[in-house]
Amino acid sequence: MAISRRDFLTRVGQAGGYGAAFASMQMLGIMPIKGALAEPIQAEAGTGKGTKVVVLGGGIGGLVSAYELKKLGYEVTLLEARERPGGRNWSGRNGTVVEFTDGTKQTIQWEEGNYQNLGPARLPSTHWTMLGYCRELGVPLEVEINTSRSSLLQNDAANGGKPVVQRQAINDTRGHVSELLSKAIAGGGLDGDLTKEDRQRMIEFLNYYGPLDKTGKYIGADRAGLKVAPGAGRQVEVPDTPLSMHTLLDASFWGGMLYEENWDWQATMMQPVGGMDRIPYAFAKALGPIIQYGCPVTEIRKTSTGVKIGYLKGGKPAAIEAAYCVCAMPFSILKKIPNDLSAPFKAVIEGSGMGLSSKTAWESKRFWETDYNIYGGLSFLAAGPSPVWYPSARLMHPTGIVVAGYMDERQIPGYQALSLENKFAASRAQIEKLHPGHGKELRNPVFCGWGRVKWNEGSWIETYGGGPDGYNTVIEPDGPIYLAGDTISHIVGWQEGAALSARRAVDMISAKVKLAKAAG
Amino acid sequence: MAISRRDFLTRVGQAGGYGAAFASMQMLGIMPIKGALAEPIQAEAGTGKGTKVVVLGGGIGGLVSAYELKKLGYEVTLLEARERPGGRNWSGRNGTVVEFTDGTKQTIQWEEGNYQNLGPARLPSTHWTMLGYCRELGVPLEVEINTSRSSLLQNDAANGGKPVVQRQAINDTRGHVSELLSKAIAGGGLDGDLTKEDRQRMIEFLNYYGPLDKTGKYIGADRAGLKVAPGAGRQVEVPDTPLSMHTLLDASFWGGMLYEENWDWQATMMQPVGGMDRIPYAFAKALGPIIQYGCPVTEIRKTSTGVKIGYLKGGKPAAIEAAYCVCAMPFSILKKIPNDLSAPFKAVIEGSGMGLSSKTAWESKRFWETDYNIYGGLSFLAAGPSPVWYPSARLMHPTGIVVAGYMDERQIPGYQALSLENKFAASRAQIEKLHPGHGKELRNPVFCGWGRVKWNEGSWIETYGGGPDGYNTVIEPDGPIYLAGDTISHIVGWQEGAALSARRAVDMISAKVKLAKAAG
Repeated sequence: MAISRRDFLTRVGQAGGYGAAFASMQMLGIMPIKGALAEPIQAEAGTGKGTKVVVLGGGIGGLVSAYELKKLGYEVTLLEARERPGGRNWSGRNGTVVEFTDGTKQTIQWEEGNYQNLGPARLPSTHWTMLGYCRELGVPLEVEINTSRSSLLQNDAANGGKPVVQRQAINDTRGHVSELLSKAIAGGGLDGDLTKEDRQRMIEFLNYYGPLDKTGKYIGADRAGLKVAPGAGRQVEVPDTPLSMHTLLDASFWGGMLYEENWDWQATMMQPVGGMDRIPYAFAKALGPIIQYGCPVTEIRKTSTGVKIGYLKGGKPAAIEAAYCVCAMPFSILKKIPNDLSAPFKAVIEGSGMGLSSKTAWESKRFWETDYNIYGGLSFLAAGPSPVWYPSARLMHPTGIVVAGYMDERQIPGYQALSLENKFAASRAQIEKLHPGHGKELRNPVFCGWGRVKWNEGSWIETYGGGPDGYNTVIEPDGPIYLAGDTISHIVGWQEGAALSARRAVDMISAKVKLAKAAG
Repeated sequence: MAISRRDFLTRVGQAGGYGAAFASMQMLGIMPIKGALAEPIQAEAGTGKGTKVVVLGGGIGGLVSAYELKKLGYEVTLLEARERPGGRNWSGRNGTVVEFTDGTKQTIQWEEGNYQNLGPARLPSTHWTMLGYCRELGVPLEVEINTSRSSLLQNDAANGGKPVVQRQAINDTRGHVSELLSKAIAGGGLDGDLTKEDRQRMIEFLNYYGPLDKTGKYIGADRAGLKVAPGAGRQVEVPDTPLSMHTLLDASFWGGMLYEENWDWQATMMQPVGGMDRIPYAFAKALGPIIQYGCPVTEIRKTSTGVKIGYLKGGKPAAIEAAYCVCAMPFSILKKIPNDLSAPFKAVIEGSGMGLSSKTAWESKRFWETDYNIYGGLSFLAAGPSPVWYPSARLMHPTGIVVAGYMDERQIPGYQALSLENKFAASRAQIEKLHPGHGKELRNPVFCGWGRVKWNEGSWIETYGGGPDGYNTVIEPDGPIYLAGDTISHIVGWQEGAALSARRAVDMISAKVKLAKAAG
């Protein structure tokens, strides 16, 4: 009997997982150009009926685990140490308190409606799983502007330290590259690499790509910016003078220029309207009393029937038993909790190290919009806190939140040890360098250094004890315990990784439950 | 006596116009990197008190004229043939009737909330004047997505006719260009053009720019797309196989690839939330009874004290006298109205020709979002109606309006003469080519060919009678009559041109009024 395309694909999917189904769909020509698809949950509806699972940690990994487990009929409890869901998915607003492990507290004082996503702030259009949850949970999205040709690049060592507009750096670079290649081809230097016909076509292409003039020279173009914009009456445009390739090589702007091209950072990017935390709050609403807030885990034990989790509730010891546990806590916190994980797991977790990513955010008048045509996007500086990240939210509102410095604290020598005051001074100086005269307009800063944020103590996993072998250890179950979170994925530091790892954990648990039921 | 910086700039501005002030500000280092500024209105408050001006045409040129004249105290009347403001700034929604000069009527039938901007649909971040009006009139803006790395390029003559994702075309092209240039430099072909040090730095730069591998080859990169995206557990990313430079030359995707780099089309672009016509309606609200709708102009006469304009009101002849007239009608309409314009003006207007830009728009499920990661942006096809323009509004809503074909009707041989049915069939076929299987999901099309739209009969000026000399004629006043609109600017087809020409007309009138008052 013939099988339909859909049947075929479903069977391939079941047998080989997502990768195999995807490859087959490509072969069949059904899906030649899709970027990414969520690995489908394989388990059938009702799989979880009568089975208890406890989820540890209410970040995206824990929330997705609980949400998918609930859908499958499991009896789920999620323990979260904080009084809010989301973990690193956290939007700072007026009144938000950023508390560090050393007791330092900063209370944000911003105008109502202004906010900054202190953790993840972007949803790539290729992060199918997270976008799917936004659709499913009704979280409205808007564009997160990751690409702006009006934002800036700055290097003290080039162009007299004056910032260069990205449209100029990007387009002048392409122009010079085109001119050089055109000359090399015309000079016969690549006769062995291209057919005569392709050489001719390459030269025509480079004339457009540069663009080059009739003599094959790059002399600037509107793409690279105008000294005077075209206008009414007699006002004709005057193109900018191009930067020389020598200056561009001095500047070495390459990181900032090609930033927008990385797979994860390509337009179109999105963000929830009103703050990234709209996502965890939407999960939390769907989960209701499944989430127990203010419940830090104190021990993780294996039992003959599953797990027993000790925790605090209202400061008092409590415990919960379950058949399975999805542990979606950061390794930095997990390593401090007494547990029955196997020795290989413990070695990976104890040997792990965390990144120390940080953001410094300010409230300000939107001089970048009114005076610089910069609507969202990022400016990059070669030294000091960088990039400067302009808000995509509330375009044209009088005020907004701008980030000046989003990087690992260790990237700048001595930065980690600076006082908050000195960190703010360093941050303000960057704005002043890009936007002279405007540094003074910044007010009410907040510094969120994830290495010192309570319940995180790190921005994301940096190293696994035992390296890649360590990773391969902890992605498998340890008896009844399954780890989840971006740590358990190849998309570290992204919600997509957390969500996919959660779905994978739910699928693995369900396969085991199904097998146990069949055996029983 | 020393003059302050501000004084100096104001004086320069008055003497030399915007260009001179701008250049001086750059010299003073005050405004090193601004992209564009609106030419300030020079006239003083109250200048217009006691002076009557009649404005003809309620497109952006007419609306801005009336708005600025009103601010200066003029007694203004604006005559508009239609029952709505905006002219080509027109958003089609459920119930909108597109009426052609031959009597053809299409009534749009779309879900509430869906719309298509049938005329202008983009506000560049460098169109300072229009953005300024949006700020001033409180028109909320959102991003218009002009750049998307997930949108497509298609050419029957290349890649077996299969669409190529823009991220692949753009990044594979850069990769091959980098490899070829790196090889030419290493082979000594450019020793005369670059110092030894710069050659070494160029090779390092090209390694990043490509990116190239250790042997200087371009072998693909995540930037160009992935066969399999990274995921949880063991799912590692698999990069796509690069397209060869030969295939890319066959495809000649250059126009679509570099589209986003043109001055007017660079990110960040914006649009009013809810439709571009939010702008004319905001002007109309500010102008109140100044706008007289349903009043087509029938004659334009000069008198000893100014102008006398004949028009219809409720189908009956009427007339209005004024000291000055700002005529912001398209030349295609103006040339049919009996008038007292001077012979040189008449020659330019009668000898002018209009573009025939058109849009075909459909309502559809958003398969481009769910199945192709395409959120806004444009796909380009080498033949037939193109580009396909995906909506930036209502991201993730179940349905949306997609344009399949936005071009001058004459671009495609035989297209202009096609019936609406055949135009729709040609448009649908383009979607099917880019998104196989989805052509059938398109419904309720509308074709807006501006060449046949009543009261426009053309999309924008294409040629002036007498060429550039003709342009230089009509930008000057003809006695009491001042022309305005994008036609009277170097930014044809953009609202910015219309707005700047209007502000220029208001300034010219005000200078004359001031002079007359001083003399009187």
